Amino acid sequence: MTELHAIHCRPPGERATEVRIGRGLRGRLGEWLQGRRTFVLADARVVHAELPTPDLTVEGGEAVKTLGSLESVLRAMATAGVDRGSLLVCIGGGTVGDLGGLAAALHHRGIEHWQVPTTLLSMADSAIGGKTAVNLPEGKNLVGAVHPASLVVVDPTFCATLDEREYRSGLAETLKIAIGRDAELFSLLERQRDALLRRDPQLLVEVLHRAVAAKVAVVEADPREHGVRRLLNLGHTLGHALESRAQGTVPHGLCVAQGIHFALALALAERAISATDAARCTRLLESYGFVREPLPPCHELAPWLARDKKRVDTTLHFAMPTGVGTSAVVPMPLRRIESALPGGC
Amino acid sequence: MTELHAIHCRPPGERATEVRIGRGLRGRLGEWLQGRRTFVLADARVVHAELPTPDLTVEGGEAVKTLGSLESVLRAMATAGVDRGSLLVCIGGGTVGDLGGLAAALHHRGIEHWQVPTTLLSMADSAIGGKTAVNLPEGKNLVGAVHPASLVVVDPTFCATLDEREYRSGLAETLKIAIGRDAELFSLLERQRDALLRRDPQLLVEVLHRAVAAKVAVVEADPREHGVRRLLNLGHTLGHALESRAQGTVPHGLCVAQGIHFALALALAERAISATDAARCTRLLESYGFVREPLPPCHELAPWLARDKKRVDTTLHFAMPTGVGTSAVVPMPLRRIESALPGGC
Repeated sequence: MTELHAIHCRPPGERATEVRIGRGLRGRLGEWLQGRRTFVLADARVVHAELPTPDLTVEGGEAVKTLGSLESVLRAMATAGVDRGSLLVCIGGGTVGDLGGLAAALHHRGIEHWQVPTTLLSMADSAIGGKTAVNLPEGKNLVGAVHPASLVVVDPTFCATLDEREYRSGLAETLKIAIGRDAELFSLLERQRDALLRRDPQLLVEVLHRAVAAKVAVVEADPREHGVRRLLNLGHTLGHALESRAQGTVPHGLCVAQGIHFALALALAERAISATDAARCTRLLESYGFVREPLPPCHELAPWLARDKKRVDTTLHFAMPTGVGTSAVVPMPLRRIESALPGGC
Repeated sequence: MTELHAIHCRPPGERATEVRIGRGLRGRLGEWLQGRRTFVLADARVVHAELPTPDLTVEGGEAVKTLGSLESVLRAMATAGVDRGSLLVCIGGGTVGDLGGLAAALHHRGIEHWQVPTTLLSMADSAIGGKTAVNLPEGKNLVGAVHPASLVVVDPTFCATLDEREYRSGLAETLKIAIGRDAELFSLLERQRDALLRRDPQLLVEVLHRAVAAKVAVVEADPREHGVRRLLNLGHTLGHALESRAQGTVPHGLCVAQGIHFALALALAERAISATDAARCTRLLESYGFVREPLPPCHELAPWLARDKKRVDTTLHFAMPTGVGTSAVVPMPLRRIESALPGGC
C-alpha cells in the first residue's frame, strides 16, 4: 500500500476538494472509482495499463483549449449517456484539465469531476482551485468557470516520463509559489536543486505537498480571485501575453518564468523589494535554468496585455514579489507596464 | 414616474437578484445603466427607441441556443474589450436570455449581467433563477451554468406586441406555476381569463408579480435544483422531449402545456391527485386554449426522454400535480413513463 498524504481545500461557497498525494496512487484509481458511473477523458499520450480506460482521448497542449474541443467533449459525454450523477475523470496535464473541468462545469449545469494531473505544472498548480477555461482567438482563458474537482490525485510517478521542457514548465510554477508565497519551499528549492532536477520521487512528494498546501491556503481565502488569490498571478500578466503571442509554441511555465523576472524588475524599480531579496529570487530562477531573456518589443505585446483578464479599465492588478516568499498585488496603470517593455509604447 | 414593484431573490450560496416589475420600466434602463461599462446583447426584433443601443443583435428563437452562437457572443465581447467589471445586458426572450446569461457566466469566468425579458415566458419564468444554457444536437439545455442576473427588469409593455403563439407560450408557463405552486394565482387565472387573453397591462403586472414571487420562493429554497426546484419542471419531462423532436418549430410553452396534461394523466393513474382537482386543472388549461393533443408514438420520444437532464440512471425525478396549486416530485422509472405513451416501448 502506497503512502498517501491528504490535503483538504474547503473554500467558502465552493465545493470542497480533497487532494491525495503519493507515489503510485494512479494504481489505486480503479479501486476508488468502483461503483461510479464515469466518463474518462485522457490525454492520448498518457494511456497507461494502470489507468482506467478512457472514453475519449484528446491531444494535450494549448491547442486543445478551444470551444471546438469543448463541443467535442460535451457531445461525447451526451452520447455516452452522462447524467447528473456521473463523474468526469480528467487524466492529463493542465490543458486537458482545463478543458475537462470546463466540460464538467457545463454538462447538466455542473457534474462532479476528478483531476488526475500528469504534469508537474498541473500537480503543483492548475489542478487545484477549480479554475477551468478555454481560449478565444482574442486571448487566453477568456471563456471559463470556477468548478473545483472533488478529488485531485497527485502521483509524482508521472513526472519520470515528462519531456524536459514540460518538466521545467512545472518547475517554473513551483518557483512562482515559493517566491510569492512560501519562504520554506523557497529554501527547500535552493537546497535540493540537484535532486529536484533529477526528479527524485520522494523529494517531489515533499515539494508537491508544500506547493499544494500553499495554493490551498490562497484558494480557501479567496476562491473567486477578488483579492489574495491574485498573488498567484505572479509572472502571469506578462507570461500570458508572451504565451498568447507565441501561439502555444512556448510552454506556459517558461513564459511565467520570464514574467517573474519582469515582475522582479518592476518591483525593484518601484522599491517594493530589497535589492538583496530580488537578487536571491533571481538566483533561484537562474539556478533552475530560467535565465532572463530579451523581451519582444512593446507594440507586439501591448494588444495581449490590453486583453488581460486581470485588467479593470486601464489599470491592472499586478502581482509582484516583495521579499523571499512574500508578494503583493498593486494596482498598476497599463501604461506603466508598457513603458517597462523594450521600445515603450 | 412609473410604479415599481421590487422582489428580492437571495438564494444561499448564489448571487442575489433584484426583480423590478412595472409598466414602462424599459424607459428607465438608460438612467439605471449610467456610468456602467456595458455590453448590450439584444434580440434583433426588439430594437426600440427607448432601449439602449445593442452592441450585438441575434435572431431570437431556439435555433440561437448553440455553442456556435455562444462563441460569436463571447468573441464580440472580447473584441469590445469587456472586462471583469463590465455588465452584460440581455434584452430578449428566453432563448436570448439563456444564451446571454451563459456568455456572462463564462466570460472572464463570470461577469455581472442584467436580464430584460421581452416575452411573457421569460418574464414569468426563465429570466429568474439563474439557469442558463445552450443545446446540443443530443438534447436541450445540456450545456449550461447557474448564473443569476443581478437585476431583472420586468416590463409588461413588451407583451402588447408579442405574436399570439409567443404570448400563449408564456401563458403556459404561468399556468404551470399556478397549477404546481400557487392556488391564489390559479384562482386569479380562472377569474381573469378574458382580461389576460387581451393582455390587460395592469392585470399582467399583478399576474407577473405573483408568478415571480412563487418562482423566487422555490429558487431561494433550492438554487441548484437538488430538491424542491424540481417542482418547476412540471410538464417539462415530456415537454422537452416534444420540443426536441419538433426541432424548435413548436414554442416551449406549448410543449410544456402538453407535458402538464401528460403529468396530470399520470398523477391520476398513480392516485396522486383527486379526480376533482385534476379536472379543475384540465379545465384551466383548456380555457386558455391548451387542449390535450394526441402524442407521438413512444419510440419517437424515447430517445429524447432518455437524455433528459432530470434522469438519474433509469429513474426520472418526475414532477406531477397533487392538487390545485400543489405538486410533488416522485422518482419514476423511465419505463413507467414510456408505457404511458402511445404504443408503449
